[in-house]
Amino acid sequence: MDKQYVVGIDIGGTNTVFGVVDARGTILYSAAIKTGIYPNIDDYVTDLAKGLDLVINQAGGRDKIKGIGVGAPNGNYFTGSIEFAPNLPWKGKVPLAQLISEKLGGIPVTLTNDANAAAIGEMTYGVARGMKDFIVITLGTGVGSGIVIGGNLVYGSDGFAGELGHVIVRRNNGRLCGCGRTGCLEAYASATGVARSAREYLELTCVESCLRELDPDSITSKDVYDAAMKKDKVALDIFEKTGTMLGEAFADFIAFSSPEAIILFGGLAKSGDLLMEPIKRAMDKNILKVFAGKTKLLLSQLKESDAAVLGASALGWEIKEAPIGVAVSETNDAE
Amino acid sequence: MDKQYVVGIDIGGTNTVFGVVDARGTILYSAAIKTGIYPNIDDYVTDLAKGLDLVINQAGGRDKIKGIGVGAPNGNYFTGSIEFAPNLPWKGKVPLAQLISEKLGGIPVTLTNDANAAAIGEMTYGVARGMKDFIVITLGTGVGSGIVIGGNLVYGSDGFAGELGHVIVRRNNGRLCGCGRTGCLEAYASATGVARSAREYLELTCVESCLRELDPDSITSKDVYDAAMKKDKVALDIFEKTGTMLGEAFADFIAFSSPEAIILFGGLAKSGDLLMEPIKRAMDKNILKVFAGKTKLLLSQLKESDAAVLGASALGWEIKEAPIGVAVSETNDAE
Repeated sequence: MDKQYVVGIDIGGTNTVFGVVDARGTILYSAAIKTGIYPNIDDYVTDLAKGLDLVINQAGGRDKIKGIGVGAPNGNYFTGSIEFAPNLPWKGKVPLAQLISEKLGGIPVTLTNDANAAAIGEMTYGVARGMKDFIVITLGTGVGSGIVIGGNLVYGSDGFAGELGHVIVRRNNGRLCGCGRTGCLEAYASATGVARSAREYLELTCVESCLRELDPDSITSKDVYDAAMKKDKVALDIFEKTGTMLGEAFADFIAFSSPEAIILFGGLAKSGDLLMEPIKRAMDKNILKVFAGKTKLLLSQLKESDAAVLGASALGWEIKEAPIGVAVSETNDAE
Repeated sequence: MDKQYVVGIDIGGTNTVFGVVDARGTILYSAAIKTGIYPNIDDYVTDLAKGLDLVINQAGGRDKIKGIGVGAPNGNYFTGSIEFAPNLPWKGKVPLAQLISEKLGGIPVTLTNDANAAAIGEMTYGVARGMKDFIVITLGTGVGSGIVIGGNLVYGSDGFAGELGHVIVRRNNGRLCGCGRTGCLEAYASATGVARSAREYLELTCVESCLRELDPDSITSKDVYDAAMKKDKVALDIFEKTGTMLGEAFADFIAFSSPEAIILFGGLAKSGDLLMEPIKRAMDKNILKVFAGKTKLLLSQLKESDAAVLGASALGWEIKEAPIGVAVSETNDAE
């Protein structure tokens, strides 16, 4: 078999991780570049292509690669573009699948939401194996989601379905979100949302907390986690409230698609019971009776970076012909 | 062709409407019984079966019927049961598909959510023809929904997906809903919710209104509609607020499945621009940028009773073998 490998690329707000993956789901060679330091998309693609060629050459060269799958925030499966991603440095629509393919001699590139890629990863290699209806919620810099219904990823009419981080959980007096609106789940339940909760809590109350020893502007969700593990009241309250908001939102998601499981993925999901317990309580309290006790709450068991890269790479296997984004580019070149 | 007809049954909180339908989607013979007057399910099924035999005999007898499709609140496609329907007189789980089939000499019966049946009706005969991703919102005694993704109805892991009337739109201080929780969309945006808004508005304010001439307990959504058409301030405010709540909720639904259209169906949808205009404004104001302007807001163009019966009947054509509910019943009988 000539083209025996695929490449998965996971684009996050902070890092872009990529790797060459074989048919058994082993990441053979991988590397990463920073995402946030490239305000110019061409500079980003140039350095990304260099990194890709590095790992591809380790695997035997471009001829070995069947396809490249990309998971990116606001990635559109139908067009191959990243469109209006609030947590990435590039504004508007970026035809990333096309740009990467051009730099790599026309290797087909397909692209989706990073959370959709995570969902494919869970379905192929993770806790969602054998499930036909589940939702993956990614708790990272932002809050994303990949929804699987009847065994298929939900792309919607435009390729962008599954933006569950942007349902409104506080209709009045909600926090400003990166998307420009207020009260989104992401503004509270992302890693940055948790850090923000800590800063606001410390500013608004006089409750004692070891977090007061830190420079408020430097507080991260990891700091809040560490404080909670030391039974710090402020930190424990924040996890309780964050979990409650997630559980309330999950009860609404269940009313939509009645999934077999909701699977938590990403940095904040590593908080374990600190987050899982209040989520479960709020789900139980807010669930419509007909759904009570049916939906499992699970943690991803895949290594975070691996799952995203594996999920994205799984898209590479699915490529049968040049995807839309690339086909459009070829038409444009011919003009 | 022997079995040339199907039967559609639409079970609402008030009426049960049923009809014999031919392959071209014409309702040949139809009738109705009251739903609410039967606290005992066996009495209901007995009278329903009598009514069914009446229309079936007009069509040439039971041998002509390929299958019966039922649309019912909280109807479970997988089990053929109505389960915990807050707006019906029967509590717990009612194996309705089985009960009807037994009364009619074993004609296969399949059952789903009434809103799912409406969605099938819109897809087969209505404004959703040719669409693969859309949501039907039924605004009647309650608020229901039928969700179609990739051309398939969403049943979820348990057959109950698509309870969008029970997403929480008021997290604090929300109205008690028939489901036992507080703040559900249905508690505000159903016909009964609108009437309730009128009663509360009149009780809490001194604003002049022609609705004050009515016995508060007898006010219906139709009264509020009639008052709004006469530019009554209270009534206009209520439609404005009800539409706004719907539009805000729709913006969240779009973040889930990015449908091509949201289609309004049922009594309250006949309010036209009174409801459509505030819905559109609230959708535009609350939509995530990536979805802006993409999802059409449409009114069902089918006659209400026709659409529900036609939608339910379409399930009758789909029957290939005895559905699960009936198969289980046969096993039980043999024991």
